[in-house]
Amino acid sequence: MIKKSINPTTGIEYNVPTMLDDKENIEAFLTKNKDKKVVAVQGLGFVGAVMSVVCANSNNNEYAVIGVDLGDEYNYWKIASINEGNFPVKSSDPKVQEYYENTLKMGNFLATHDPIAYSFAEIIIVDINLDVNKKSNKIGDLISYDVDLNPFKKAISTIGKYCKDDALILVETTVPPGTCSKVVKPSIENEFKKRNFSTNKIKIGHSYERVMPGPNYVDSIKNFYRVYSGINNESAIETEKFLKTIISTKKYPLTRLVNTNATEMAKVLENSYRAMNIAFVVEWSRYAEEAGVNLYEIVDAIRMRPTHSNLMFPGIGVGGYCLTKDPLLASWAKINHFNSKDSLKQSEKGVKINDKMPHYAFDFMIKAFDLDSLNDKKILLLGVSYRSDVGDTRYSPVEPFYLNCIDYNAVVDTHDPYVKYWEEINIKVSQDLDEKLDMIWDIIVFSAAHSQYKNSKVITKICKMSNVMILDTLGILETKDIIEMNKKNKVKVLGRGDI
Amino acid sequence: MIKKSINPTTGIEYNVPTMLDDKENIEAFLTKNKDKKVVAVQGLGFVGAVMSVVCANSNNNEYAVIGVDLGDEYNYWKIASINEGNFPVKSSDPKVQEYYENTLKMGNFLATHDPIAYSFAEIIIVDINLDVNKKSNKIGDLISYDVDLNPFKKAISTIGKYCKDDALILVETTVPPGTCSKVVKPSIENEFKKRNFSTNKIKIGHSYERVMPGPNYVDSIKNFYRVYSGINNESAIETEKFLKTIISTKKYPLTRLVNTNATEMAKVLENSYRAMNIAFVVEWSRYAEEAGVNLYEIVDAIRMRPTHSNLMFPGIGVGGYCLTKDPLLASWAKINHFNSKDSLKQSEKGVKINDKMPHYAFDFMIKAFDLDSLNDKKILLLGVSYRSDVGDTRYSPVEPFYLNCIDYNAVVDTHDPYVKYWEEINIKVSQDLDEKLDMIWDIIVFSAAHSQYKNSKVITKICKMSNVMILDTLGILETKDIIEMNKKNKVKVLGRGDI
Repeated sequence: MIKKSINPTTGIEYNVPTMLDDKENIEAFLTKNKDKKVVAVQGLGFVGAVMSVVCANSNNNEYAVIGVDLGDEYNYWKIASINEGNFPVKSSDPKVQEYYENTLKMGNFLATHDPIAYSFAEIIIVDINLDVNKKSNKIGDLISYDVDLNPFKKAISTIGKYCKDDALILVETTVPPGTCSKVVKPSIENEFKKRNFSTNKIKIGHSYERVMPGPNYVDSIKNFYRVYSGINNESAIETEKFLKTIISTKKYPLTRLVNTNATEMAKVLENSYRAMNIAFVVEWSRYAEEAGVNLYEIVDAIRMRPTHSNLMFPGIGVGGYCLTKDPLLASWAKINHFNSKDSLKQSEKGVKINDKMPHYAFDFMIKAFDLDSLNDKKILLLGVSYRSDVGDTRYSPVEPFYLNCIDYNAVVDTHDPYVKYWEEINIKVSQDLDEKLDMIWDIIVFSAAHSQYKNSKVITKICKMSNVMILDTLGILETKDIIEMNKKNKVKVLGRGDI
Repeated sequence: MIKKSINPTTGIEYNVPTMLDDKENIEAFLTKNKDKKVVAVQGLGFVGAVMSVVCANSNNNEYAVIGVDLGDEYNYWKIASINEGNFPVKSSDPKVQEYYENTLKMGNFLATHDPIAYSFAEIIIVDINLDVNKKSNKIGDLISYDVDLNPFKKAISTIGKYCKDDALILVETTVPPGTCSKVVKPSIENEFKKRNFSTNKIKIGHSYERVMPGPNYVDSIKNFYRVYSGINNESAIETEKFLKTIISTKKYPLTRLVNTNATEMAKVLENSYRAMNIAFVVEWSRYAEEAGVNLYEIVDAIRMRPTHSNLMFPGIGVGGYCLTKDPLLASWAKINHFNSKDSLKQSEKGVKINDKMPHYAFDFMIKAFDLDSLNDKKILLLGVSYRSDVGDTRYSPVEPFYLNCIDYNAVVDTHDPYVKYWEEINIKVSQDLDEKLDMIWDIIVFSAAHSQYKNSKVITKICKMSNVMILDTLGILETKDIIEMNKKNKVKVLGRGDI
């Protein structure tokens, strides 16, 4: 039976290739791009796909880019979509599509499942996933977690099997500190020995992206500061040379760190800091609810101080691929790569606190509306993605909130302007807000802070409803709107005890 | 026997007054300032003294300011010093002295211990202490803490006993949230009832300062954002009017919050955030030491991101009057003022982690230099204040570090360009760095990041020493200096595993 790989946004099905060989296509592509240096990007996910088009739109137009992913049912649709003219990442940043269309015009971007692509590349960028396996119970307590480096090692070995002996291997994946020196380098060396290559020429750089999905997607790669390092001086120099061709380094200067341990630690520290800053606000949200004050107003006032401008607001939780796991990657490496006796307790605690947020939001709803049961209650979730104005549902905090509602036999419907299909839950998501707001609901939950929901027409429509319980998990409703809505409905806001 | 009150900086002794009455001086002062509104400032400490001169230098020169403190052995020297032409707060900010000298020229600032001063004031600013009693063991573990509101209540009652019925009482002290409504207001009402005053006119505002001792001391009051509120609309309006006369509110607009609970919470949240951000870096410092990387370099690189520009550096610990206690004030009030079942566990944890920092620094020293004993070891501490280029030793982290050294029978000497007398320890501190560096030491500790210590002459002098163990607890030494020093000495730096 031929396996299918389905593009979740378009619904188009592709036959998973039965052969690994894609050499003919690659060679034809390279013939057309004879005068260009070849960059291969391993991994065509949210980062790799966009990084590919950024490279293909480099400052001097010097690259032919081959994106490589696995030819299996989970990933092949990305390869097929790219080659068909349909970029797999949909974004509110128009530059993503624009950059991709440029590559179509220039003909300098190909996607393939054939790892032979690496053999043509002078630069190979590693943009694959490195996951943490989190075990949590039903109420969101993180019970344990583990990091399995094997899939990552396998992907690196594949590069080592095919790459030129002097290719620059640039790791962008967020890895546990110590990985480039303790895992990547030995894996490549191992493959080189099998191929009777000298290991002297091996060049491995590390430079993490700071991609922010959303309206500045491309700029968060191209126009932003970068930190880099190499396993030796030559690797670092080559990494710098390459980064200068794709990043506006005059405005956003590069910072070189001494070694790959340092840059790897920098990345997980950055994200742990952010995760911790979110966790910090959690107990203050509870405090505000108890003390009858509006924490959003307080945070707004405090953020005027430049030293406090990154103070977070209350919310439904933390999602996305990074903040939910990077502190754990860091902690895991502390023990497993550097033989420490102590894990990163505070940073782990930050993750644990954040993981509980959507469960608290659910309990808050039950308590605030004094609900005996959710049986057959009709609930509309406005927004399923993890971030405002982004269509990314990976580890969305709306997921546990949704699952809790379902567990308690509620009838849950969802809307999101950026998500047609919610992969993790396997359901279709409505894009028609008017239609949804014309229906009868027991509870409407603002679960993502998309701009569309702040539109005055939407607010007016909700104000006109009757007997609806409205839960705002992100403080997107203004006080005057809440007063208006409260006339015929019941509004509750996380982090606001003044309502 | 006449009690003495000693100015710790000058050593000058003053007789503590045996009478409360200072009416004659006050009346003479008021006669000279007939055309001016009277502002009384309760408390002449680090905030109150500077706030007094800022008020006396108001935008339109409209105030006669009377600073009030207790006429006892601990406080009277401040009153006497001010009236003698010797400002009690010494600062690296020249504006402090300049503002004070202006008041001498204008003759619009008097200090007194007689609370009758409040009876002449239209505005009374509360700038007294509100302490947390922390119980810790010898190794810095916070065992328990408590807040005794009685001294604060007593001070507020004193105002209520004397003040005009329509005076604005502006509380600037950092208080547990809920204090203005649950403590200040009832205390004033209580006194007013005794005086047969109507309680209708009571005006209480709350607006916390964000004073930063150091080179921008005055500007941190005058040219900075403020948050304010009142117990009712009139109080808030009067508070706003007053703040506009002393703060550059055009450039730094005021933010009004709904009630005093909100502004009180904002203040302790701000400081808890800062304390937490310091605590966050603690375990990463240990990580850096284990993984052999330089955390200062990493933090420098990360701080380029605007969202991460307040990431803290490793260090010897947290000191000063605010960050060491404000999270506890907040937590205490959560339970005692708002009947919560849960304390602020994370914020308390932040304080606990920070309290341990100097003890870790001490242990690090023992371990890093492989010391069997400190018996008779000659140790020089460079810097005793809690902050760089500031002469404030309150809750300095150098204190537990110093006490640990003494406990282990080391012979400890201290230098600090900003501190002549270390009040908490009761010792004189040298101001002569050259002399100290000419002596023979076993261990030299950089314990405060004063600019003087970064001077190349100082560094060169230390480089020329032999067989000295040098501990840098704040990363003030540059790598090239460390390499040079390491030739004849042994250097270790907290948060740097690469040395």
